[in-house]
Amino acid sequence: MRNLCMKVSYDGSRYCGFQTQPKGSTVQDCLEKAIMLLTGEELKILASGRTDAGVHAYGQVFNFLTSSKIPIERWCIALNTRLPEDIIVRDAVEVPLAFHSRHSAKRKTYRYTINANQFPDVFQRKMQYHHSGKLNVPAMAEGLKYLIGTFDFSSFASRHSTKPSHVRTVFDAHIVVDDSMCRPNSRDQGLIHMYITGSGFLQHMVRIIMGTLLEIGEGKKLPKEMPQILEMMDRSKAGPTAVSKGLVLWNVDYGELFENY
Amino acid sequence: MRNLCMKVSYDGSRYCGFQTQPKGSTVQDCLEKAIMLLTGEELKILASGRTDAGVHAYGQVFNFLTSSKIPIERWCIALNTRLPEDIIVRDAVEVPLAFHSRHSAKRKTYRYTINANQFPDVFQRKMQYHHSGKLNVPAMAEGLKYLIGTFDFSSFASRHSTKPSHVRTVFDAHIVVDDSMCRPNSRDQGLIHMYITGSGFLQHMVRIIMGTLLEIGEGKKLPKEMPQILEMMDRSKAGPTAVSKGLVLWNVDYGELFENY
Repeated sequence: MRNLCMKVSYDGSRYCGFQTQPKGSTVQDCLEKAIMLLTGEELKILASGRTDAGVHAYGQVFNFLTSSKIPIERWCIALNTRLPEDIIVRDAVEVPLAFHSRHSAKRKTYRYTINANQFPDVFQRKMQYHHSGKLNVPAMAEGLKYLIGTFDFSSFASRHSTKPSHVRTVFDAHIVVDDSMCRPNSRDQGLIHMYITGSGFLQHMVRIIMGTLLEIGEGKKLPKEMPQILEMMDRSKAGPTAVSKGLVLWNVDYGELFENY
Repeated sequence: MRNLCMKVSYDGSRYCGFQTQPKGSTVQDCLEKAIMLLTGEELKILASGRTDAGVHAYGQVFNFLTSSKIPIERWCIALNTRLPEDIIVRDAVEVPLAFHSRHSAKRKTYRYTINANQFPDVFQRKMQYHHSGKLNVPAMAEGLKYLIGTFDFSSFASRHSTKPSHVRTVFDAHIVVDDSMCRPNSRDQGLIHMYITGSGFLQHMVRIIMGTLLEIGEGKKLPKEMPQILEMMDRSKAGPTAVSKGLVLWNVDYGELFENY
């Protein structure tokens, strides 16, 4: 048996999330079907984690055990020809049998994108949350900084979370503003990308953080309220859950595993 | 009567082109329907030119005569709420009655995008032509330069062109390579954007120029063959018509008309 590990990008718009569900098409279903068409094996893949309905991935990672002898460098193209065009496998490596996409992950990075220009970008509309009102971006960046560290993130977890512990470590979180497409003399504020890297994330955690930052950006909350919200460990103290389409699982870090990012 | 002029972006993927057709949905149909829903007027809009099925626009321009008294600053949002999400009106100005979107245009710019990375970009797949083979980009740029000037572009026009003259002026044409998403140690070549600005363009002209540049990039033609292809005035001497999805009507220039671009 070989243990193969792959990096996959997908546009989550059409899917009921990554993980196989009783109802509706998922990214996992498509990947397992493509592997079956290629090797004849009916197997289950194991991903670094699930993504919700409508959430995208640039660098989701999964692995599976196979008895196929297809050389590793052929897998990406062989699978891509058997996948719909909104799912693209873009790296494949053979890993030790002990490798496990979820347990072996060292850190994960998500990106959330707000389009703060006056009008939505017609070409990016499925991966940006459009917010045309004025946002105080420095205040949002200030609020975000309070989340770097190891905390109980219960205030930022879905009420449906079943995890025994809500303690997670955020290694880095920052905002990058891209104003390259802002029109002169307009009230365009550009694209506001939030990147957040952590040991792991609770259900809806990144989207609730973003929803809270949006309230800070709109002046409904102050940046210095962030530590208080954390301390309360109460979901009702944080902001709403931002819509899924702005969220991308950007990268999963396993140390030296992938030559490319 | 007022003459209103608007700038519109659209994702052309779902449409049979800009201009109303006997069969199939077009961008023009959607815009006229939105105006009808807003004002009750059944009118015809006039655009800077048509775009083919599957071709996109960032800055298409159209105008129309209306007896509506709606203030100019309300039109964008009023129309956008009545338009599908793949069409966005993003500027509106009142113009003299003599203004005509096609006749008054001074120059037009198109952009064609090739993704020359190993794998397609799942998020941009509907607006990039993916070409994974090695391309000689400096040779493509060299070939393109020969097209700047005033020439008979019959070799680069659809055989179905009905225009009395094929003489057009290309003011500028250049290539911009964006390698920001190239993976290290890969054979990714980045995004190759061709921008071309001219007095006007013949049917399929930009796509045939791109198809010819691709042959130059692949080593099937030499850059210095470009002047010969122009001189022959024979469609069969140029390369194939590149696929529509990589093409965007980028901007139409009317001088001082729009404050923003």
